[in-house]
Amino acid sequence: MGYELTMAALRDLAEGAAVLGTGGGGDPYVGRLLVEQQLRAGRQIRIVQAEELPDDALVLPCALMGAPTVFWEKLPGPQGIVNAMRALEAHLGRRAAATMPIECGGFNSMIPLLLGAETGLPVVDADGMGRAFPELQMETFAVLGVPGSPMSIASDHGDTGIIDAVDNRRMEWLARAMTVQMGGSAYICDYPMDAATVRRTAVPRTLTLATRIGATLREAREEHRNPFEALTEMLTDTIYSYGVVLFQGKVADIDRRTVDGFARGRVRLTAMADPDDTMEIVFQNEHLVARRNGDPVAIVPDLICTLNSETGAPVTTEALTYGQRLTVYAISTPEIMRSPEALACFGPPGFGLDEPYVPVERLAGRTGPPVRLPAAP
Amino acid sequence: MGYELTMAALRDLAEGAAVLGTGGGGDPYVGRLLVEQQLRAGRQIRIVQAEELPDDALVLPCALMGAPTVFWEKLPGPQGIVNAMRALEAHLGRRAAATMPIECGGFNSMIPLLLGAETGLPVVDADGMGRAFPELQMETFAVLGVPGSPMSIASDHGDTGIIDAVDNRRMEWLARAMTVQMGGSAYICDYPMDAATVRRTAVPRTLTLATRIGATLREAREEHRNPFEALTEMLTDTIYSYGVVLFQGKVADIDRRTVDGFARGRVRLTAMADPDDTMEIVFQNEHLVARRNGDPVAIVPDLICTLNSETGAPVTTEALTYGQRLTVYAISTPEIMRSPEALACFGPPGFGLDEPYVPVERLAGRTGPPVRLPAAP
Repeated sequence: MGYELTMAALRDLAEGAAVLGTGGGGDPYVGRLLVEQQLRAGRQIRIVQAEELPDDALVLPCALMGAPTVFWEKLPGPQGIVNAMRALEAHLGRRAAATMPIECGGFNSMIPLLLGAETGLPVVDADGMGRAFPELQMETFAVLGVPGSPMSIASDHGDTGIIDAVDNRRMEWLARAMTVQMGGSAYICDYPMDAATVRRTAVPRTLTLATRIGATLREAREEHRNPFEALTEMLTDTIYSYGVVLFQGKVADIDRRTVDGFARGRVRLTAMADPDDTMEIVFQNEHLVARRNGDPVAIVPDLICTLNSETGAPVTTEALTYGQRLTVYAISTPEIMRSPEALACFGPPGFGLDEPYVPVERLAGRTGPPVRLPAAP
Repeated sequence: MGYELTMAALRDLAEGAAVLGTGGGGDPYVGRLLVEQQLRAGRQIRIVQAEELPDDALVLPCALMGAPTVFWEKLPGPQGIVNAMRALEAHLGRRAAATMPIECGGFNSMIPLLLGAETGLPVVDADGMGRAFPELQMETFAVLGVPGSPMSIASDHGDTGIIDAVDNRRMEWLARAMTVQMGGSAYICDYPMDAATVRRTAVPRTLTLATRIGATLREAREEHRNPFEALTEMLTDTIYSYGVVLFQGKVADIDRRTVDGFARGRVRLTAMADPDDTMEIVFQNEHLVARRNGDPVAIVPDLICTLNSETGAPVTTEALTYGQRLTVYAISTPEIMRSPEALACFGPPGFGLDEPYVPVERLAGRTGPPVRLPAAP
């Protein structure tokens, strides 16, 4: 059930959330420092399960919206997210009982912790993606019928706004323009809902899962084990179940632009042993599709993670640079994210990709024997 | 004091407001048709003076925001402006007692009438510019310390938003992005204030003035009088006092783009008798500066109006076309618009113009004898 976040757990959580962030959701280092500062100041952060809250408790999910390339340059602080929450509370005429992440990510798992530390509100151990996605309508909440509106948005300058859109796609469309105008990043609270709705629509226990992923990578480093092997083993008893190394190589080319409020681009890796063996990953904040020598081997909403080949540490899209040694690691997305409605929202068509969705368990096997590493004894 | 708007008065009002719109504020024809439809449907529109309202009556000024080039292509309807008002009422937790224009213009003097017809609210005979300006902070309200926030914004699709900015310039900045995203035009209610504040900060009786200007032009046509002569004579007993013909010629060149939510560009006219005698007018929705053979002869916030040379009918910036015979007519702006604070907000520096502000009464005289026509007997 509920627990108090410790400094050690925070470090694992930040790293694990950035793995689930699948290239997006912001760099874990900067996000973690913001929350560490809160814990050092003596503030407490309580993680709760949705089951612990009364049915009608108001939960206000929160996030930092915009291009992760901007998060690095314009360091967020706690005031903006507090302003966003207060603006939505004032608009709704109700006080929040809890907050929660809308996505997993090095930054976007930290923002609700920051808000919880500042306000004393508990943070629900769940989110609406079980990973990160670039757009606001790409939420299990939305797929299961929860309106994202009214949402609030706040700048670093003290401005706030409320958007009450006719649907969740238009909410994204309007909020994106505000985000760009607010300097490329903005604090938001959206999908206001009661705890009963959280239980029905959220991907559960993802903060705890992220903490486990981070701990697994840390322990593997401490024990000099192969981190990918450890990760694959760990995932088997979770709702993500399947993890696989798709490729190992170095970054040969990176094309990344901050455009329309997103970090868009593609990265090309070549295998160390065979420069003709390449992997290209297309991203919009998050990695969308990985193609090995032209053939897709993983595609949204399955998770495509770029991890440091030595340490397993996640490398977000804004941090990709020439020459990095990376392991492309795919994780199968939970079943709640694979319904026809879910795939229509955040599967390949949601991003204008032509390839059909094929689960990574099947797709990764197509291009020769799967690179899945044997489980440790 | 207060009066009921008749169909005949509406026609004069629409034309006169477009003269005061100084090239902007939207075409009077389309705006007028929308309100005529309301009157034909039996709805009533009551114009009131701010003095008739109790001190604490809530007044919600309203307008159509965006590029007038868009207003032509995406015809506004009454629902959007009703949605904007209801959204701001809900946010404030108070009902409006009246609405009013934020500017004069063929469209933007019609929008409050449309709202009044739909809701039964009276329309205050005043506005915050005494003309039209392209940006939301360019208001006597703002110059005299009234915050524009919270403001509401509504699309044609049913979306609404609230913007609560730290100052009126940032309000403009954020609302502009929403307007562009909403399709280049959007309905707004801003500068919510009580009637006592309206009396202190608004340019008074501008709906009535617009009606008089329209009537003057109409009567001149009916009586085969020179419309510019009639207009100059009429203005002498108003707070605008001075009107002058700056130039007569035909449109030789027009450069107009719809960019960042504005209609921006410049128009060049040549004199009929002497093609080397030219006038160039720079505009951003509204005409900003008129230069005759390179020398400024009128500059914001004085009014620069492009009128049909035969009929005196106003021609808005989005309607300028090659070959039109136009009379460039300047009107001195009221004293409330000429304070140092006002000039800092919507004088030349507010538009990045290098020329200093010189009142048109002095400036027009510099380039040879003023073209001011003799008053009729």
